[in-house]
Amino acid sequence: MSKSDTLNSAPITEAITSFATGSLDEGRSEPALRMTRISLFDWLAVSIAGQDEPVSRIVRDYVSAEGGVTEATVVGTAQKLPARAAAMANGTISHALDYDDTHFAYLGHPSVAVFPASFALAQKTGASGKMFLEASLVGMEAATRIGTWLGRHHHFVGFHSTATAGAFGAALASSRLLGLDVRGAENALGLVATRASGLRAQFGTMGKPFHAGMAASNGVEAALLAHAGFVSRPDALEADQGFAITHAAEMRDPGEILDGLGKSWMFEGVLHKFHACCHGAHASLEALIEARDRLSIVPDEVASVSLSVPPRYLKVCNILEPQTGLEAKFSYRLCSAMVLAGRDTAALTTYSDAACRAPDLVALRDRVVVKGVDGLAETQATARITTNDGRSVEITHDIDRMGGLALREQKIKAKAQALLGEDSASDLWNAVKTAEPASLDEWLRG
Amino acid sequence: MSKSDTLNSAPITEAITSFATGSLDEGRSEPALRMTRISLFDWLAVSIAGQDEPVSRIVRDYVSAEGGVTEATVVGTAQKLPARAAAMANGTISHALDYDDTHFAYLGHPSVAVFPASFALAQKTGASGKMFLEASLVGMEAATRIGTWLGRHHHFVGFHSTATAGAFGAALASSRLLGLDVRGAENALGLVATRASGLRAQFGTMGKPFHAGMAASNGVEAALLAHAGFVSRPDALEADQGFAITHAAEMRDPGEILDGLGKSWMFEGVLHKFHACCHGAHASLEALIEARDRLSIVPDEVASVSLSVPPRYLKVCNILEPQTGLEAKFSYRLCSAMVLAGRDTAALTTYSDAACRAPDLVALRDRVVVKGVDGLAETQATARITTNDGRSVEITHDIDRMGGLALREQKIKAKAQALLGEDSASDLWNAVKTAEPASLDEWLRG
Repeated sequence: MSKSDTLNSAPITEAITSFATGSLDEGRSEPALRMTRISLFDWLAVSIAGQDEPVSRIVRDYVSAEGGVTEATVVGTAQKLPARAAAMANGTISHALDYDDTHFAYLGHPSVAVFPASFALAQKTGASGKMFLEASLVGMEAATRIGTWLGRHHHFVGFHSTATAGAFGAALASSRLLGLDVRGAENALGLVATRASGLRAQFGTMGKPFHAGMAASNGVEAALLAHAGFVSRPDALEADQGFAITHAAEMRDPGEILDGLGKSWMFEGVLHKFHACCHGAHASLEALIEARDRLSIVPDEVASVSLSVPPRYLKVCNILEPQTGLEAKFSYRLCSAMVLAGRDTAALTTYSDAACRAPDLVALRDRVVVKGVDGLAETQATARITTNDGRSVEITHDIDRMGGLALREQKIKAKAQALLGEDSASDLWNAVKTAEPASLDEWLRG
Repeated sequence: MSKSDTLNSAPITEAITSFATGSLDEGRSEPALRMTRISLFDWLAVSIAGQDEPVSRIVRDYVSAEGGVTEATVVGTAQKLPARAAAMANGTISHALDYDDTHFAYLGHPSVAVFPASFALAQKTGASGKMFLEASLVGMEAATRIGTWLGRHHHFVGFHSTATAGAFGAALASSRLLGLDVRGAENALGLVATRASGLRAQFGTMGKPFHAGMAASNGVEAALLAHAGFVSRPDALEADQGFAITHAAEMRDPGEILDGLGKSWMFEGVLHKFHACCHGAHASLEALIEARDRLSIVPDEVASVSLSVPPRYLKVCNILEPQTGLEAKFSYRLCSAMVLAGRDTAALTTYSDAACRAPDLVALRDRVVVKGVDGLAETQATARITTNDGRSVEITHDIDRMGGLALREQKIKAKAQALLGEDSASDLWNAVKTAEPASLDEWLRG
């Protein structure tokens, strides 16, 4: 089967492997690389913070027990392991808290699938920080575009886009770091198409974070095998009976998905979590913070709060009277009370069983009313605060429009401070500037 | 989520994990265990014969380069590796020749997905030959029943049942060897449901044999993680948005699939290949052998041969004038010529470029006519030989009705002789009787 036979009808494979293995336009990619650094910083912070979660321990112990060549860092241990194994553990660990970044275009988490792969292979190949960052960006851009092509239907039918689209991104980031040519990257992409998997049925179990580890390790494996001469069906993403058609993909016009590839970056639309609770509550908390600050009030001055949210979230994060720390993360009312009381909603420890019973929070919680309003985007919410003396302010916030990179950096630093402490966050930020794998290694090992 | 919440509507998961972790009825399982030994012998022979294929070398080198704890044998090397890695390599190697067994009820290859998992974990856990055989039988029975439940639609839509159903079987064989209880086996089954994958689009590439390695290693991994306390969605095979519904499964009445579980064995319907060519040609070759022997003729006496075959195979294995050894495997006419000329169609070396040009074979080939006939099952064919002196015999053969276990053993020994030589085949058969992993290890390592 010759290349031209198989790829004539595989425009996405053709364009995206060429993009992933080619040189980047320095000028046009600079803002995207700056966003990649922000995501890297975020990924490192949530990985370090999540390293002792039960699923993190189980998967780390599993790969540690297998052992093998000492190529790549595993978060939370000084023992290095084969790149594939490290990617599996680090993907799982970094998604354990579900506090990592999200891209709403494909409803996937790009960083936790791609960085574990690119970081492990950067270590294995001795890549520079620049090469590591560029490969990561390329992989996350590929995951975002392929994920968008697979579409929301793919996700809502039951596939977990983080795992599926993420595996393709991880394979291409890995291909780039291994120096594969287009033909090699096609073989990696074709191979990962038969390996990518992950079901939303696992949500709420350890399976969900493990999906990120699967995606990352599948990508590393596919690229290493392609590098060794493995021949797969190169167009298996797009072929008849290929991944897309068998996995309920929407498969819009490839032209739409490929538009501007290499010149503009869909990845730049990535969103970061600045509150350690359900992403569905974030827009309302941002609106509430702005209303609170505009009114310049203390908790006792609040008479009532009204939140307007997208109706589908009422089933997701509207536990009215949460009793546990976990339930608190899915409670618009208690999270709002935390914001009004000035608690640090970025810190994991804020969401405790005790917080659910704290008299000041309960009193504020009971003044909050939540209603579903049609027409709000899933990144939007409105908060209205009315004070005891009759003043009121109403703010609508869209987390998809959060301002420039400088504001994003400022907020991500505050998040890292909440997770790691002020000094560590500041030192880690400096390490991320050059992103040299050897420096990052020191942060991640136990 | 409590067990009763999740498993009320997961009858297959409930029954099959209970079966897989429970004790076997010795009397009722004896014939099935005898068939398991035949398949083990076949699996060992095709693994040894396939160890130097390009895909075998690539995947073996890949896992060897990773290294790790020395738990399990990898075919073709004295270096032992972690059980998961050995399962991946051995699955791939044993399917490299596509000469292993097939179960037509689910169109999958049971041995290459299950034995690599059960053998690796038998070595890791120090299991006896009896425990190894029982776990293998249980895994292959589970793969067969789950594969039949997924159905032909699942396969024809584009999923490779060897990889998908095989992973479930491998997970349950592995669970048994690790001594998991029902809850543990449910977690393994649930986890492998989110990990199982494999697309028929890979047929004709190295991806196909790799699927067997994926299935086997996915099963080992899922069971090891479940053993370590990993919590998955236990009913992910059957759940809403679970594996079956998202993978085009037919999902017939579970009662049909579970009927007789633990008492009768669907696995006993497994078929072995006795010719190193496309399975589609086997029934016609068996019919032709019987007709040839009945007439007791030499090649020069053959005036004409007429084969009647299922029409769908005309697109699969009817290359009229093959030019290469690979094409010869997909040529009814040349394979028939080999049978008439007394060539050993079980030997790999018979299918050579030279055979395609051999004057005696070409002369016989040109006397063979092939026609598609509606109503033949895919395991059936008819061969009619007419001699120069006007005699003729017509035989219809169904490879699904090949007689008892004794005949199967006799034919499998002949196959192993063709692959390994007479002495080796005889010694290997003795090793298979007890199936002690330590003895089998000596056969498989390089």
